[in-house]
This record gives sequence, C-alpha cells and structure tokens, in this order.
Amino acid sequence: MKEHLDVEMQKRKIRAIAVLGDTTLSDPNLTYVVGGNLARGGVYVKRMNEDPLLVTSNLDLSTARKWHRVKRIETYTEWGLEKLVKKYGHGKAFPHLLGTIFEKERVKGKVALFGRNDLAYGIRLANQLRRLGIEVVGEQSPTILETARETKNREEIQELRRVADTTSKVVESILKILRNMKRKRGHLQVAGKRATVGRIKALISSKLAAEGLVAPEGTIFATGPSSSEGHNMGVLSDEIKEGRLIVFDIFPQAETGYWSDITRSFVVGRADAKAKRLFETVYEAQTDSLDFLREGVTGEAAMARVCDIIERRGYRTVRDIYRGKAKTVNSGFNHSLGHGVGLTIGERPYLAFMRKDNLRSGQVVTVEPGVYLRKYGGVRIEDTVAITSKGVDNLVYLEKEFELT
Amino acid sequence: MKEHLDVEMQKRKIRAIAVLGDTTLSDPNLTYVVGGNLARGGVYVKRMNEDPLLVTSNLDLSTARKWHRVKRIETYTEWGLEKLVKKYGHGKAFPHLLGTIFEKERVKGKVALFGRNDLAYGIRLANQLRRLGIEVVGEQSPTILETARETKNREEIQELRRVADTTSKVVESILKILRNMKRKRGHLQVAGKRATVGRIKALISSKLAAEGLVAPEGTIFATGPSSSEGHNMGVLSDEIKEGRLIVFDIFPQAETGYWSDITRSFVVGRADAKAKRLFETVYEAQTDSLDFLREGVTGEAAMARVCDIIERRGYRTVRDIYRGKAKTVNSGFNHSLGHGVGLTIGERPYLAFMRKDNLRSGQVVTVEPGVYLRKYGGVRIEDTVAITSKGVDNLVYLEKEFELT
Repeated sequence: MKEHLDVEMQKRKIRAIAVLGDTTLSDPNLTYVVGGNLARGGVYVKRMNEDPLLVTSNLDLSTARKWHRVKRIETYTEWGLEKLVKKYGHGKAFPHLLGTIFEKERVKGKVALFGRNDLAYGIRLANQLRRLGIEVVGEQSPTILETARETKNREEIQELRRVADTTSKVVESILKILRNMKRKRGHLQVAGKRATVGRIKALISSKLAAEGLVAPEGTIFATGPSSSEGHNMGVLSDEIKEGRLIVFDIFPQAETGYWSDITRSFVVGRADAKAKRLFETVYEAQTDSLDFLREGVTGEAAMARVCDIIERRGYRTVRDIYRGKAKTVNSGFNHSLGHGVGLTIGERPYLAFMRKDNLRSGQVVTVEPGVYLRKYGGVRIEDTVAITSKGVDNLVYLEKEFELT
Repeated sequence: MKEHLDVEMQKRKIRAIAVLGDTTLSDPNLTYVVGGNLARGGVYVKRMNEDPLLVTSNLDLSTARKWHRVKRIETYTEWGLEKLVKKYGHGKAFPHLLGTIFEKERVKGKVALFGRNDLAYGIRLANQLRRLGIEVVGEQSPTILETARETKNREEIQELRRVADTTSKVVESILKILRNMKRKRGHLQVAGKRATVGRIKALISSKLAAEGLVAPEGTIFATGPSSSEGHNMGVLSDEIKEGRLIVFDIFPQAETGYWSDITRSFVVGRADAKAKRLFETVYEAQTDSLDFLREGVTGEAAMARVCDIIERRGYRTVRDIYRGKAKTVNSGFNHSLGHGVGLTIGERPYLAFMRKDNLRSGQVVTVEPGVYLRKYGGVRIEDTVAITSKGVDNLVYLEKEFELT
C-alpha cells in the first residue's frame, strides 16, 4: 500500500524517490503515485516522511487534481521549464529541471528513480543527474514501489472490484448470446451463417468498449484443440459447435489503469463424459483453492494442494518437472495457480512452486487451475480475489456453469 | 527508414545498438525493430553493417517470425536464461544474458541502448553492463532510432494508409448516424431521448473496436464552447443540437502499433454565418497547406503561410507570440500546424515555428490548422499525409463536409 512507502524507504536507506515519465499509459509506477491517468505524465518527488510534490503540464493540471493522490501539484511552467529549454535546449532542459526540483526540495542522499522511459533517455538522465551531484539509485526488484503496490488498500480493492464487476457483465452478456444462438446441425448460427470465433471476438471487443474497458493484450476465446494450448488466443476461423470445449479468458484494463482477469470454460449444449470430467476436476481444484487461500499460507502450499487434487483424478501436473519426473508436461495442469493483479496484469505475488512467502491481506491474485488434453481441449476456471485474514474476498461475481443449454 | 540504421550508427560512431523490453506495447522503438507486437518483448542486437539478432520467449517465437523484420530469431532458453536465473537469481540473470549475447556476438565499443523500461531497471542494467566491460551509451534525442523512424518506407506508408482508411470508415459511419438522427426542436434524438456527447462517444468506441483499433488517448468529440478548447475531450453530458459546432478529432492505434490522426468539424443541420466563416477560413488554410507541403519546404514556412491566410481573414494566430505582440493567444489559431505520426501519435517532424529543417520524402505528418472563438466554438480540419518530392500523398480519403443536412 502507498501507506508503506516511508517504511520501505527507511528499510532501504533511500532518502527520496522520484517517479517520472511523459505519460502514465502503460506505466504502473507513475499511475500509482499520481493516482490515475495523466496523458503527458509528470514528475513525482517524495522525500522520506514528507508529503510528495507532483510537477505536471498545464494541460494535465486539472486532471491531476481530480485524482486526489497528491496534494501539492505544480506545473512545469511554474518551475521554469521554458527558460531552461532556452538556456540548455530541449534535450538537456529536463535533467536541469529535475536538478532544480531536487535542490529546492532539499533532496539529498540516495534517490531511487522510477517510471517507464526509453533506455536512451534513462541512461542519459542518470549520467546528467550524477554530474549535478545527485546519488542516483536503480533499485533491484522488488523495488520500493513494487513492494508498496503488492498490497492494495481499500480504495484500490474497491476499484478492482468495480473492474471485475464490469468485466463479469461482459462475460455474462456473451454467455447469454451464445446460449440463445440458433443452432443448425450442431453449428451455432449468426444471421444465417455459422458462428466463428472471429465473430464472437468482435462482439467481445464491442462489449468491452461500451463498458469503458480496453484489452491491450487481447482476449482468449479458444475452442476445441486450440483450447488445450495455454497461449493460443483462439483461431478466428474456428466454428462454434455444440458440445465443443471453449476457454474464454478475458483480461481487460480500465481507464484508471487497474486490470481484471476472469476465465470461464464451457460447452454450448451438452458435453461428453471426457469434457465433464475435465470440468469437474478443475472446478473441484479451484473451489478447494478458494477455500484454502488466506493470509499466512504460501503460494507453494496452494499450488501443491491443487496438484494433489488434479493428480488424484489421474492427470499429470507441472509438479512432475519439480520432482524430476518429466522435462515438460503437455497434457494436464501445466502452468502455475495464479499471479498478482493490480496496475499490471501479472505481478507479485505468484501462486507457484518455489514461492514460499506468506500471502498477506490486501494482495489481489488470480486463482486459475486448468487441465488440458492435447489435441482435444482444455478447461480453466479463474477468479480474481483479494486475500484477507479470514480467507479470500472473491471480486468476481459470476456463475461457473459448464453446459449452456 | 530502417535502411538508414547503419548510416546513422556510422555517423555517430556507435558500434552496436540494443533494443530491449518486456513488451512491445507502448514501446515504439522495440516495435519498430521487431516489426510488430510481441507480448513478452525481446532483446534485439544489431552491430553496424551486420544483420540483427532477436532473442525472445518461446511463446512469442512464432509471432516474431511472422513479422519478417528479423531473420535470426532465437529464444531465451537457447541462450541459457534458465541456467542464469539459477546461478544469479531473477534480478541479475538478465544483464548476464545480455552480457553473454554481447560477448558471443562480438559486440565491442560503444553500444547504444533503447526500449521502454522502468528507470529502476534501466539504471541498474547500465551499471551492471558497465561492470561487465560494456561501453553503454544513452543517446541524446533525436537518437539513431528516432532518426530512422522519422522517414517511413513503403511498407510503413502502406500500413499507415490502411490505418487511415479504417479510421476514416469509423468517422464516416458516425457522420452518417448523426446525419440520419431524428431531430426534435433542434435536439438530435436517440431512442426517444436527447443525444449526448457521451452516447456518441460510446458509439465511436464500439465502431473502433469492431475495426480492430484502440484509442488509448481517447477521442475528442466536443460541441459548442468546449470545441474552442484544444484539449477538451468533450463534455459527456453535452447535448447535440442542430447548428452547433462539433470538433471530432480521432487518433486511434492499430494492432501493428501504427496510429492515424483525423479531425473533421461540422454542424448537424445548418450553420450560422459566424461558424461558416470559421470553416471557410480553416478549409482554405488546410487546402493551401496540402498544396504547399512537399520535400524541401520547412515546417516554419508552412506554418507562416497558414498564419497569413488566417490573419488575412481577421483572426489572431500564434505568430503574435513569436512577434512579441502577445503572451498568449486565446481566440484564433493557437497551436502548431502538425506533427509526425508513425509508431507514436506525436513525433518528428513538427510543422511549427522554429522548425527550419527541410521536410523529406517518407515523412508522415498531420496537417491540422484550426481557428477557435472562446465561449463560442472552434473548427479544426486534419488529415494525415505522406511527404513526397511532388507534394503530399494524403492518406485520408474522407469528405470535408461542413453542414450535415
């Protein structure tokens, strides 16, 4: 939580942090400290145990105020950027601006820098700041900010719940459309033609847009054999047929920068026994995991329980690799149980083998076991949940129905 | 053009360039050298006058091959990443991997680094590479890659034309909807209710999504007084009325990473004389500019011509500031004429005062004069065009109709 920034700075003997960049887009650290989206970014400077300062462009000023994350907000113009451009040129004005800010704000000692920028710029900036006498630090991961971001405060959980709700609405509307589609000799029909994955994906995109969500990394809607390949996004020309397995994994981002991650697996119509067994196994594993997870347990322990259940049902798991029994696992449960979600779609903590840290209240993770049979199909069920001292607070409110009849 | 990389490296005495990052999303330099989108990014290394090498994840391998930009594509696993993780841990494995690549590829002398990464990572990486004996350079802007990206080759122009076409289709469909909307006492109606900017924006989002475009920076759809404020995205609750000025500025990005930028200004129904005069002025200025621009002219000269036309019609322009006649220009033409478009929505070259470089064939720029009357409304007309030796190749094929009747 951002409330932890000072503690982390103290622990690491970092006197100040600066987060900067020309946009908050795709920059979780800058978005985090600023509180939301600023098209032209800004410079955030915070000394240990002091209130932060945000310097931004005139154009973003009113937006920056709206986020209420930083009280002291000033503009580049107020800090004399235009004069520095005249004096030093475009390329060197910015480091001088930073130098001025650091000096006036009495920033001394080690300063850790953050924010996504091109390496050309970052390396030059570090050199220039060092020449101005600033002790620049590039922190090792997990950095102060990654550590702070790892646990979410109430406001963040609320936003993650809102994004999960909106995402659920999109999933629900797609499931309803599929359920009600005309069928002809086992094929789903749209406007007299066979429904394809491409057609459904266009629908998903429209629904996401209408809800104010974007999916920069796409959406998985995979049917039949392609649903058994974890990273297959779905083949656009594939036809949607009754009884065929579908994995629908959706991971959109809201305008605030927060993501959500939900997977439902199902068939339209009736499933065969093989598919049903896959679903029952994964459903049992996921339910058990949701019951087991809470503050204090480890990612490794949660992973082991899921492997126990899946192996008991006769499928292989990724544990075979850790036990030296196999080099790769094709069919079975061949990925990890979950990952953190927040201002990125994949961050700490990880629910996986070798992860022995205790989970903490306020962490938000996916819980997503899956079992896949190569050349046949797969099932994965995924919710995004918040860890609490009493168990999980499931942010996803959405049925797990297998047969859409 | 990428064909210029070696020349630029020679000029600047840079022996090799490396572009790296964990995703191509929002990273124009990495997208450029890789040729398209790679969800998990990669490491691109190119020595002067040698073919480049791309190292990427197993998961992105088939996608990377699809882009045809790099012939030699190998995987992190082939380069021993997993072993380096075991030996050095997650945080330090990557610089060692880079060190190995540089060594095996016989990279010596100055290496310029690129690619969007967090500053914490970039600064640490530079330190670690220097410790491995590599002469790391953070280039001043315009960097080798910015210079290469500034002129587009045939393949890029083709893609920019495709994105402009698709964007035009979206604009056209929205104009058609507006033109055909029921009107009641001067208000446009949707499903029996007054149409609002919010409603139209939702439509725009849906249409963009259906065309496979995203608009990470939003879309301007501003009506009445808010259309006179250049950076007002439009007030969602504003009602769409007959005869009221509308500025519709759309700047989406395609999956390939390329952007387009188009503005149309219009009224639904009939306009008053004041609005008509604004439109005629801007239309004349834009047409003149499209005729004037070509290889060899400067941004400054183009800007001056546009100011001449607009001032002749009795409006103020930003030139007043350069002439010391005013500190700010509120009403009138108060921004610059255009900017480059490619893998970013704002890049070199700039059509503005103080820009005295000759335009070159292959540059792609917006041409977007506008005149605004505070508290009344504004008009801006914008196309995205390619510069050639004979004039401009307008990538936008879309009418400039003022009154939608």
